Amino acid sequence: MTYFPGIQDDEFIRGDIPMTKQEIRILVLAKAKISPHDIIVDIGAGTGSLSIEAALQAPLGRVYAIERHAEGIDLIRANTAKFMAANVEAISGSAPQALQGLPVADVILIGGSGGHLSEILHNSDKLLKVQGRIVITAITIETLYEALFIMQGKPEFDVEAFGAQISRIKHLKTSNMLQALNPIYIITCTKKSL
Amino acid sequence: MTYFPGIQDDEFIRGDIPMTKQEIRILVLAKAKISPHDIIVDIGAGTGSLSIEAALQAPLGRVYAIERHAEGIDLIRANTAKFMAANVEAISGSAPQALQGLPVADVILIGGSGGHLSEILHNSDKLLKVQGRIVITAITIETLYEALFIMQGKPEFDVEAFGAQISRIKHLKTSNMLQALNPIYIITCTKKSL
Amino acid sequence: MTYFPGIQDDEFIRGDIPMTKQEIRILVLAKAKISPHDIIVDIGAGTGSLSIEAALQAPLGRVYAIERHAEGIDLIRANTAKFMAANVEAISGSAPQALQGLPVADVILIGGSGGHLSEILHNSDKLLKVQGRIVITAITIETLYEALFIMQGKPEFDVEAFGAQISRIKHLKTSNMLQALNPIYIITCTKKSL
Amino acid sequence: MTYFPGIQDDEFIRGDIPMTKQEIRILVLAKAKISPHDIIVDIGAGTGSLSIEAALQAPLGRVYAIERHAEGIDLIRANTAKFMAANVEAISGSAPQALQGLPVADVILIGGSGGHLSEILHNSDKLLKVQGRIVITAITIETLYEALFIMQGKPEFDVEAFGAQISRIKHLKTSNMLQALNPIYIITCTKKSL
Repeated sequence: MTYFPGIQDDEFIRGDIPMTKQEIRILVLAKAKISPHDIIVDIGAGTGSLSIEAALQAPLGRVYAIERHAEGIDLIRANTAKFMAANVEAISGSAPQALQGLPVADVILIGGSGGHLSEILHNSDKLLKVQGRIVITAITIETLYEALFIMQGKPEFDVEAFGAQISRIKHLKTSNMLQALNPIYIITCTKKSL
Repeated sequence: MTYFPGIQDDEFIRGDIPMTKQEIRILVLAKAKISPHDIIVDIGAGTGSLSIEAALQAPLGRVYAIERHAEGIDLIRANTAKFMAANVEAISGSAPQALQGLPVADVILIGGSGGHLSEILHNSDKLLKVQGRIVITAITIETLYEALFIMQGKPEFDVEAFGAQISRIKHLKTSNMLQALNPIYIITCTKKSL
Repeated sequence: MTYFPGIQDDEFIRGDIPMTKQEIRILVLAKAKISPHDIIVDIGAGTGSLSIEAALQAPLGRVYAIERHAEGIDLIRANTAKFMAANVEAISGSAPQALQGLPVADVILIGGSGGHLSEILHNSDKLLKVQGRIVITAITIETLYEALFIMQGKPEFDVEAFGAQISRIKHLKTSNMLQALNPIYIITCTKKSL
Repeated sequence: MTYFPGIQDDEFIRGDIPMTKQEIRILVLAKAKISPHDIIVDIGAGTGSLSIEAALQAPLGRVYAIERHAEGIDLIRANTAKFMAANVEAISGSAPQALQGLPVADVILIGGSGGHLSEILHNSDKLLKVQGRIVITAITIETLYEALFIMQGKPEFDVEAFGAQISRIKHLKTSNMLQALNPIYIITCTKKSL
C-alpha cells in the first residue's frame, strides 16, 4: 500500500517551532527515495512532520527523530500518536552525540543541526549505508554553503542541489492572492557503491 | 514495491518538445496521489515524462497519453519502451475529442490543452470518478487564470493551487551557480463525494 | 538634485494597510520614469509610500493619491507631512469616479482598484498624456490577467510585464536567513505617439 | 536632468559575456544611490551595461570599468560609444591590482571578481569614501556567502542583502508565458561615518 506525502500542514499539532511545509516535504521525501524497510534518521525533527511522513513510507522500517528542544519532543510524540506512526522514536538531544547507538541509516534527513552541521556531515559516511541518501534542507545561506562545501569535497558522494520558492494561492472572495513561503534549498547526497 | 518519481530529465529521450522538469513531476505526482490500479489520462503528454512516472506508480492501472503532435507521439512511444512502462497508451489527437471512448479516470493530468482548456474542464466532471484528481500545470497566466476561474466555480470540486519556482544549483569548478527553471503553477482539483 | 527611491519600509507610518515594499517601489518607479514636472496619479495609494517617493522624484510636479479607506487617507497625510512631500494631494474615494477633474497624467500608478480595474483601464487612454506610463502592480492572478488582457488589446499601448519574487536576507547571530516577500507582478503600459 | 536606468537589454552590444539584466540593474543602481559627481568603480564590468547606466546617473563624475577579458573591454568601449557615456573609462585587468592609482570611490559595484572577492573586500575600506556604497551582485552561493561573511564582520559597514528572482512575461499570440531569469543576490554595504 503506497503512502503519498500529502498530510496538510494544519493537520499537524504545532507549537511555535518552525515546520517544513507540505510542498517541501514532498520534494524532500522524493529525494530520500524511502523504501518500506528503511532506517531513517531525522536530525532537527521539529514538529516531526517529516519524520511522520517518512515513517508512513517505511512501515516496516524505523525513524529516529532527533530533537533538542523539549517542546519539539512533545510535539513529535503528539503527532506520532495522532498519525499512528508507531515506528517513529523521538530522541531528545543534539546530533552527533544523540546518534550514538543508532543503527546505520538508509536515509539521513537534516532540517536543523544546532550549529553542528560540519561535525554531522564529516561523520555522515559512517552513519550511512552504501547507496544511502542524506537530504539537507537549508533556510540559511551558511547551511547551504557549508553543506555544498563539505559534501562536494567527498568523492564517495554524489551531490545534487536546488532551491524551491513556493507561493501558495489563497482563494479570497473574488480573487486569488499569491502568498510566498520562505525559499528553501534542498541538497541531496547519495553515497556511491565504490 | 513503491515507485519514486525520480527519473532524471536527461534520461528521457527528448526532441524539441518542452518537458515537465523533475522537481515539477515530483510535485504533480504527489498531488495526483496515484494508486496502483488507477486509470490516468495525461492531456498534452509531450515527451511522456509524466505519463511514464505515473504509469510506474500505477503498475496495475493504465495511462492514456494524449498528444496532438506526431513528434510527441514518437517520443512517448520511445520513452515508454525505454522505461518499460507497458501500461502507457499513446493517443494521437486533441482533448476533448481524443478522450472519446476512454474509461472514467481516477486522475487527469493537464499539461497542455491546445486551446481547449475551458472545454476540457467543463467536461471534467463526467470524465472523472468521485474522489478523482485533476492536476493542471500552468506556464501561462491565461491557463492559470482560466483553470482557477472554471474550477473554483464548480461546487463539486475542492481546488488548491501554488506556484513553484525551482532554481537548480550547478556545480562548477570552484563555485555553485543558480540556474532558474521557468516558474510553473500547479492547480489540484479533487472531486468530492457528495 | 536627484532623488533615489530608497526610503526604508519601517520609516513610513503604517497601520494595518498593506504597503508596497521598498524593492518593489524601486522597480515600479524605474518603470514610471518620472520627470521633475510630472503629473502622477496613484490609484489605491494605501499608506502613500509610492506617492511620496514619486513626489520626491517630481518636486515641480504633483501627485494625486487616491485612496478609498479613511485609515489610508490619514496615513497618506501623516507620511506626506513626515517626508515633507508637499506636492502630494490625498483624495478620498474610488477610481474612476475620484479621478473627475484631475489633470491629464504623465504617470498612473495602480496598486489597488477596488474592483474597478477594468473600468479604469478602459478609460486610461483619456487620462494619460501621449508617452505617458501606466504601471500596475498585481498581487492577484485576476489583476495580472485582466491588466494584460485589456492593455494588450489596445494598439495605442506598448505593454511589458514581469514578476518579482524578492527574498530579504535577515542577519541573525551566526547565520543569514532567507525571508520571502510575496511575489508581485509589474505591468508597464506606455502610450505611443501615433 | 534625471537619468532613469531603463536601457533595454537588447540595446546593448553583447557578445558571449553574461550581462546583468535590466531589472537587476535597476535594483543595483537604486542601492548605489549615485549622485551626479560620484566616482564609481565597476569591478567585473562585463559588457559595461551597469557602468554605462551608472555613468548616465553621474554625468559630472567618472566610472572606471574594470574587466579582465579582452572581449569585455571591446564591448565596454563599443557600448560606451553607442550610449555616449564619455565618462566611462575601460581598464583592462583584474581587481585589486587594476585599482592601483584610481581615486577613492563613492560607489564600488562588484559583478565579478575573478576569484579575488575576499582580497577586494578586505581592501574595500581603503578604496571607499565615508558614506560610500559597495553593491555586490552574486550569482553563486560562494560569492553570496563570502560577501556576507566578510562584510558583516566589519563594524564600519552597514550590510543589507536580498535575493531577486525575476520572471519576464513573454506575450505570445494568445497567451503570456512566464520566463525566469536566473536568481541573483544583491548585497549593499554602506560605510558609516564614525
